[in-house]
Amino acid sequence: MNAQAFLTDFHYVATFGATDNNGVDRQAATAEDKISRDWFAAFARQRNWETRVDGIGNMFALVEFTPGAPYILIGSHLDSQPLGGRFDGAYGVIAGLHAAERVAERVREEGARPPFNLAVVNWFNEEGGRFAPSIMGSSVFAGLMDQDRMLAVRDLQGTSVREALEGIGYLGADERPEVAGYAEIHIEQGRILEREGYTIGAVDYSWHTQKLDIEVLGEQSHTGATAMADRHDALVAASKVVLMVHDVTKDFEEEALVSSVGQLTLEPNSPIVVPRRVHLVADLRSASPETVAAARATLLEQIAALAVEHDIRINVKDFDVRGIQRYPEDGLELAEKVAADLGLGARRIRTMAGHDSVALNRIVPTVMMFIPSVDGVSHCEREFTTDEDMVAGVDALAGVAWEMVRGALAGDREPAAAASGAGA
Amino acid sequence: MNAQAFLTDFHYVATFGATDNNGVDRQAATAEDKISRDWFAAFARQRNWETRVDGIGNMFALVEFTPGAPYILIGSHLDSQPLGGRFDGAYGVIAGLHAAERVAERVREEGARPPFNLAVVNWFNEEGGRFAPSIMGSSVFAGLMDQDRMLAVRDLQGTSVREALEGIGYLGADERPEVAGYAEIHIEQGRILEREGYTIGAVDYSWHTQKLDIEVLGEQSHTGATAMADRHDALVAASKVVLMVHDVTKDFEEEALVSSVGQLTLEPNSPIVVPRRVHLVADLRSASPETVAAARATLLEQIAALAVEHDIRINVKDFDVRGIQRYPEDGLELAEKVAADLGLGARRIRTMAGHDSVALNRIVPTVMMFIPSVDGVSHCEREFTTDEDMVAGVDALAGVAWEMVRGALAGDREPAAAASGAGA
Repeated sequence: MNAQAFLTDFHYVATFGATDNNGVDRQAATAEDKISRDWFAAFARQRNWETRVDGIGNMFALVEFTPGAPYILIGSHLDSQPLGGRFDGAYGVIAGLHAAERVAERVREEGARPPFNLAVVNWFNEEGGRFAPSIMGSSVFAGLMDQDRMLAVRDLQGTSVREALEGIGYLGADERPEVAGYAEIHIEQGRILEREGYTIGAVDYSWHTQKLDIEVLGEQSHTGATAMADRHDALVAASKVVLMVHDVTKDFEEEALVSSVGQLTLEPNSPIVVPRRVHLVADLRSASPETVAAARATLLEQIAALAVEHDIRINVKDFDVRGIQRYPEDGLELAEKVAADLGLGARRIRTMAGHDSVALNRIVPTVMMFIPSVDGVSHCEREFTTDEDMVAGVDALAGVAWEMVRGALAGDREPAAAASGAGA
Repeated sequence: MNAQAFLTDFHYVATFGATDNNGVDRQAATAEDKISRDWFAAFARQRNWETRVDGIGNMFALVEFTPGAPYILIGSHLDSQPLGGRFDGAYGVIAGLHAAERVAERVREEGARPPFNLAVVNWFNEEGGRFAPSIMGSSVFAGLMDQDRMLAVRDLQGTSVREALEGIGYLGADERPEVAGYAEIHIEQGRILEREGYTIGAVDYSWHTQKLDIEVLGEQSHTGATAMADRHDALVAASKVVLMVHDVTKDFEEEALVSSVGQLTLEPNSPIVVPRRVHLVADLRSASPETVAAARATLLEQIAALAVEHDIRINVKDFDVRGIQRYPEDGLELAEKVAADLGLGARRIRTMAGHDSVALNRIVPTVMMFIPSVDGVSHCEREFTTDEDMVAGVDALAGVAWEMVRGALAGDREPAAAASGAGA
């Protein structure tokens, strides 16, 4: 096994869109995203793996063992948040490429003819920083989002997904591989594995999440010439909404609910004009759907009262609602067995963050694994995971992929061919 | 006198950058601003008036009576706020052009040889919505701001004033006219004239104003995976700052102080990332410098305590401080006499908003007049003033300009030649 080759590739990819503070800025369908995509395609080409790009920019590198058989997909995403970390997503894709190489070698060495082929995937726009919603490419693949609607989504500058993908040459039309299973490895983005000394987390379920799209409509006026009593300042009301979204977590047990406003834009955004309109997005997450529902109800009530008090309009829409997803038990057991065989400590763990695996888990047997994040920080430049943990994770992913191409999770289910990506 | 010609021109100019709701969007050095500038130049060309453009984009249409004599300037600005009104600024420029035409006719008819020439001016970037600070062109002309520093100012998209002016072909290099006096007419942007039934306001002083440039520095992290207790959310703290800026007015008598936050930007502004940095601009105004100073002191104290409470950094800088400016008594009396001769009701009035005349008043005898604003609203699309009031204002401006070119305010002062624009 070649740990050094993996590390060389990982640290090389981290130079694409590198920032001053060891992070990366490689948002979906930007010039920096294109560089990482070109690198992914070159890696596949050098190994004679076929590369496909689908109609929402997902990239697949196909490793064929058994002509005509469905594929086990392994991978994650190469896009990042603005000023994001170099591990989130990219680690899972590069681990996938190296794990696939090892599985291919082993198949060759053993002269095996497994029931499934293997493909490494780089999902489009997992982050959702530039184009909302997040987890876009894998959700379209899984039939959970409509491709045409997603291609029409625009960023804050007015560029659509379609235009941006065309602009970097990655709006494909290739047929999607028929999928029989999915495995992904990712950094934890929390501090549980580090604190408890485990190398591998076997993810058992994802949190319930939803967003609220909130539009505050005041009246534009002059900051100097308009009397305070005559103003309908959209930003003053919006600031109260931000604090409501933050404070609603206090209604519940500590850390039972996380919530925040990450996006907010102002119109007209001029220093001497009282704001006319504020648009903001609130994000609510909990292990309990009831907790999210209760927080949402409280917020709707408080926001309605605020609109009356300020004599302005506030429109609130539910958006990007994702229920709790449990990962299959036999996948959890497989991850634990592979870790044990490698001598790696493992525990079960939930994910508060969304992942491409959450979408894939809706259509095929899916395994999701974590490796530790130092200090638990993520979506920022000081995100960090050790080389040692990364290498251990590649071993674990290679082990899981090896078992899956040999049919480990296909046992008592429908024939794997029943599941496939939505439309080409 | 030709009121209809004025009204035709006024309503024609209102079609440049017209919005759906009867406003205009004609920010400084945009394509829409260029159209209004081209129109201004054409108006002058048709009358054989020389047009000059200086190094900060101010435009002058020169009406020469006495070769070599200094100029009385009359005008305002053709740029607008985003989704602004069609009266703010544009009225004063178009009134200036028509007033100049009348003064020129009268000089011709009477065979007069006045001691001063007359020029109509369209000042660059009075609004400051795209490029801060506001009142930029007239302040550079008056030597209150440095031209090179202002040319380097960038908008939120990163375009500099120099690039924007070059882009529309209005970065000039013409010599500035030597100035001996200034007169401007503008809508009130408040409801005093309308409420009390006056047609003309003679502006006696401008309010004390200042801005605070506030930078809130938190830490970027994942909205899902980061525990609430581990966050340093820049937007939560910034929202409290917005409310402090709003609420500080309650420490003083009603309407003694106005304050608000009109500009706020967020980084990275992604729905699933806890904000790292918020930049905002607060605007404080009062008739009393002591009131502004007291409000500023309260805010600095509250913001410092907030930074400690949230364990984040908040940087606050004073910015764009403008003291109370009194307009000269003989100018007030001139405006009142002209109004009385025309049979127009006039009263003295202060301005809470800044104007180009505030800058000119620092260097030459200056007259500032208001006409009524319906409902007092401004910096928004439903800004309105009647045709009748506009026409009365053109009469008043023509009367004041006629007296000024004949030396009305030059009496007991230094020779007018002592004052001139700063550098060419």
